[in-house]
Amino acid sequence: MLLPSLREQVLHANQEIARRGLAPHTFGNASGIDRSGDRPLVVIKPSGVDYATMTPADLVVTDIDGNLVEGSLRPSSDLDTHTLLYREFPQIGGIVHTHSEFATSWAQAGRPIPCLGTTHADYFHGPVPVTDPLSADEVEEAYVRNTGAVIVRRFRRDNLDPLALPGVLVAGHAPFTWGKTPAQAVEMADVLEYIARLAFRSVLLGAAEEGIPGYVRDHHYQRKHGPRATYGQS
Amino acid sequence: MLLPSLREQVLHANQEIARRGLAPHTFGNASGIDRSGDRPLVVIKPSGVDYATMTPADLVVTDIDGNLVEGSLRPSSDLDTHTLLYREFPQIGGIVHTHSEFATSWAQAGRPIPCLGTTHADYFHGPVPVTDPLSADEVEEAYVRNTGAVIVRRFRRDNLDPLALPGVLVAGHAPFTWGKTPAQAVEMADVLEYIARLAFRSVLLGAAEEGIPGYVRDHHYQRKHGPRATYGQS
Amino acid sequence: MLLPSLREQVLHANQEIARRGLAPHTFGNASGIDRSGDRPLVVIKPSGVDYATMTPADLVVTDIDGNLVEGSLRPSSDLDTHTLLYREFPQIGGIVHTHSEFATSWAQAGRPIPCLGTTHADYFHGPVPVTDPLSADEVEEAYVRNTGAVIVRRFRRDNLDPLALPGVLVAGHAPFTWGKTPAQAVEMADVLEYIARLAFRSVLLGAAEEGIPGYVRDHHYQRKHGPRATYGQS
Amino acid sequence: MLLPSLREQVLHANQEIARRGLAPHTFGNASGIDRSGDRPLVVIKPSGVDYATMTPADLVVTDIDGNLVEGSLRPSSDLDTHTLLYREFPQIGGIVHTHSEFATSWAQAGRPIPCLGTTHADYFHGPVPVTDPLSADEVEEAYVRNTGAVIVRRFRRDNLDPLALPGVLVAGHAPFTWGKTPAQAVEMADVLEYIARLAFRSVLLGAAEEGIPGYVRDHHYQRKHGPRATYGQS
Repeated sequence: MLLPSLREQVLHANQEIARRGLAPHTFGNASGIDRSGDRPLVVIKPSGVDYATMTPADLVVTDIDGNLVEGSLRPSSDLDTHTLLYREFPQIGGIVHTHSEFATSWAQAGRPIPCLGTTHADYFHGPVPVTDPLSADEVEEAYVRNTGAVIVRRFRRDNLDPLALPGVLVAGHAPFTWGKTPAQAVEMADVLEYIARLAFRSVLLGAAEEGIPGYVRDHHYQRKHGPRATYGQS
Repeated sequence: MLLPSLREQVLHANQEIARRGLAPHTFGNASGIDRSGDRPLVVIKPSGVDYATMTPADLVVTDIDGNLVEGSLRPSSDLDTHTLLYREFPQIGGIVHTHSEFATSWAQAGRPIPCLGTTHADYFHGPVPVTDPLSADEVEEAYVRNTGAVIVRRFRRDNLDPLALPGVLVAGHAPFTWGKTPAQAVEMADVLEYIARLAFRSVLLGAAEEGIPGYVRDHHYQRKHGPRATYGQS
Repeated sequence: MLLPSLREQVLHANQEIARRGLAPHTFGNASGIDRSGDRPLVVIKPSGVDYATMTPADLVVTDIDGNLVEGSLRPSSDLDTHTLLYREFPQIGGIVHTHSEFATSWAQAGRPIPCLGTTHADYFHGPVPVTDPLSADEVEEAYVRNTGAVIVRRFRRDNLDPLALPGVLVAGHAPFTWGKTPAQAVEMADVLEYIARLAFRSVLLGAAEEGIPGYVRDHHYQRKHGPRATYGQS
Repeated sequence: MLLPSLREQVLHANQEIARRGLAPHTFGNASGIDRSGDRPLVVIKPSGVDYATMTPADLVVTDIDGNLVEGSLRPSSDLDTHTLLYREFPQIGGIVHTHSEFATSWAQAGRPIPCLGTTHADYFHGPVPVTDPLSADEVEEAYVRNTGAVIVRRFRRDNLDPLALPGVLVAGHAPFTWGKTPAQAVEMADVLEYIARLAFRSVLLGAAEEGIPGYVRDHHYQRKHGPRATYGQS
């Protein structure tokens, strides 16, 4: 069986989606990529399988273009979004898609989540971006792959760094998050839901859209991610 | 005892209402219909009995006009709504009525739930409709049966397909959902509550009432229900 | 020990307040009254004692004017509200005071809870009333007793029936509910919180303040409480 | 090992933060101070350590200026806020910082929590204040210490009593609460979250910003904290 360790990581990330309540039913999926060989390999959740009974052997291995390499089950129906993001964002190693309730509510409203507080700034260095809607042609041609394409287009347009903004809201759909590993990706999914809940309430209380000053945002982001990070035991 | 298998299914659907928190106390009920014989038979929850202690033998069997066929307990007080729906929607095999909190809040506001996202579109092919209020005469004449009648009238008016829109909000009351089986009906009740929660928050965040484009809605509905469904293991 | 059975009922009602999450910490209290003797006796929760460890012997017995009859602990600091309500509403046998979150939020907003749906109408035959604020003199003179007085004044002003409207919101404070027994009073506290949650969301979705038509309200109230009640096994 | 009893209290307060759901992940921290000796000593949570596995020996002891006295782990990154508050508010003995959801939402909105009800008044004798944002210079110079400085400045400006208002919202960040002991500080954190939830909903329902009359607020605060407190068993 290929990639036993990455299979374990991806299985764990999928189970965390369920354990943290980030997706009802089997909405949601996690994947990881091994870029160490000549041919990068993606490990992804199978489609429509219950998280509770999933085993490492149920996971599906594809190449970075989504061609099946190993596995007897059909891969997640969102595979083509994952592989496109792996091709376009070479710095990421894991992707998580959820339908977590508050992040999805923002996605449905088509509104970026403003950076209203320091917790947000600790993880997302600015507002969480929202994609454009897909056009009718994009839906018709290749809906799932083009979901990845609108994400990438959104990041390219404003020259956003996928590691400084490790997630996005797909308009009218739901969030995707990512990180260097599947574990980081699912942590970002959890944090994103938390900041989406806070921002929902803050906005109803009249929070200013522009959010916290840039110098506070920079300070918080740097203290967790900069070269002189002061948080946690090092 | 008639229909032991359908009794089990209906009992299970009633228990799921409680387990998923879709109705406090004993608000809510599930039924199923066996249309295989000459005389279709309905199995329904008894009135005011605790979900926790209910057994298959407690369920009540009636014909499609609500005449008692088997059972020593009084049937759910909503029986006449169920039987009218079974008569008018021959394609359905199970019905669930809940007082789930967010769906009921939309029903109380008299507002259809707009189709704001792909999760909604995966299950409901358009806004979740809301009935007209019952008139004073309808309440006086036959309140429970006419609750079914206003549902049917709403579907007839816009020529809605009960399987493409497997649920409705009764204005000032609460939701009914249905499906080919009692299990599907209770799953729709759960999904309806989920999309009602999402839509509540999205609307407060300013989501446009018209929701996602028709071509996205069609794509999602078809991928779960169309002849070339791609979701899950087939 | 006086009134062992009523002590059990009042203890149980107090424990239900905690079990159903209707009051954090030790906010909240339940009482009952035995009107069978020449001198009616009230059983009430002691002040500031943890629900988890309370025993029947911890409860305090007073007469209907609040004079201590039996008990070594100090009675609930809200005793004088309870006794005034027992004196003024002779048809009630149990009272519950909670700080349940949504009912308290309406009380803090000083807004009656409109009757927006049939669940509301099943238990409260009209909007849940809200009292006037206490005046400075009323606070100064006898704050707790006058909390009861503003409740009674509110019911007298519109000639409201305490059994048809088994609860009230004290403006800027929290709800009181009651019933024929302590068990009914705590059930009303639970229902009130449920309808307060629904109404909160319905109002944010734009529900009309006037609520459901009077003929629907009457129908629902009568089917649970009228001479020809059709709900439950009789 | 220094201060074994205070270590236990501070550990317990940190665990309560997690148990009561006041901070996700390891956001949040509690400390206590022993002022009995010539050199007051502060006990504080280590940075980024899981609440579930923390032991008394993991806690860090510093002097009131934050100089390490005992401990092998790095202290909480918020240490300098705690020590500044201990220096400036000599009447307090414990401090808790959380990211509890509703209090943080108010902090992100930059809005004080109005005193809308008696539960609020029982614990906070007026609106919960919100600080000014830190200036760019304050962030640059000493972000964590200046977080304490803006708190103190807010209290000095209106001559607020830290024991009558045992908490504050740091604008764009989250709440700090305190008390005579670490246990009191964490109880205030819990109460603050509760009143933040109530006030959020009351404000959406249109509660008047000025809140309950001053004479009610005074009555409630005095009955819990005044010389003739009537609540609980004394």
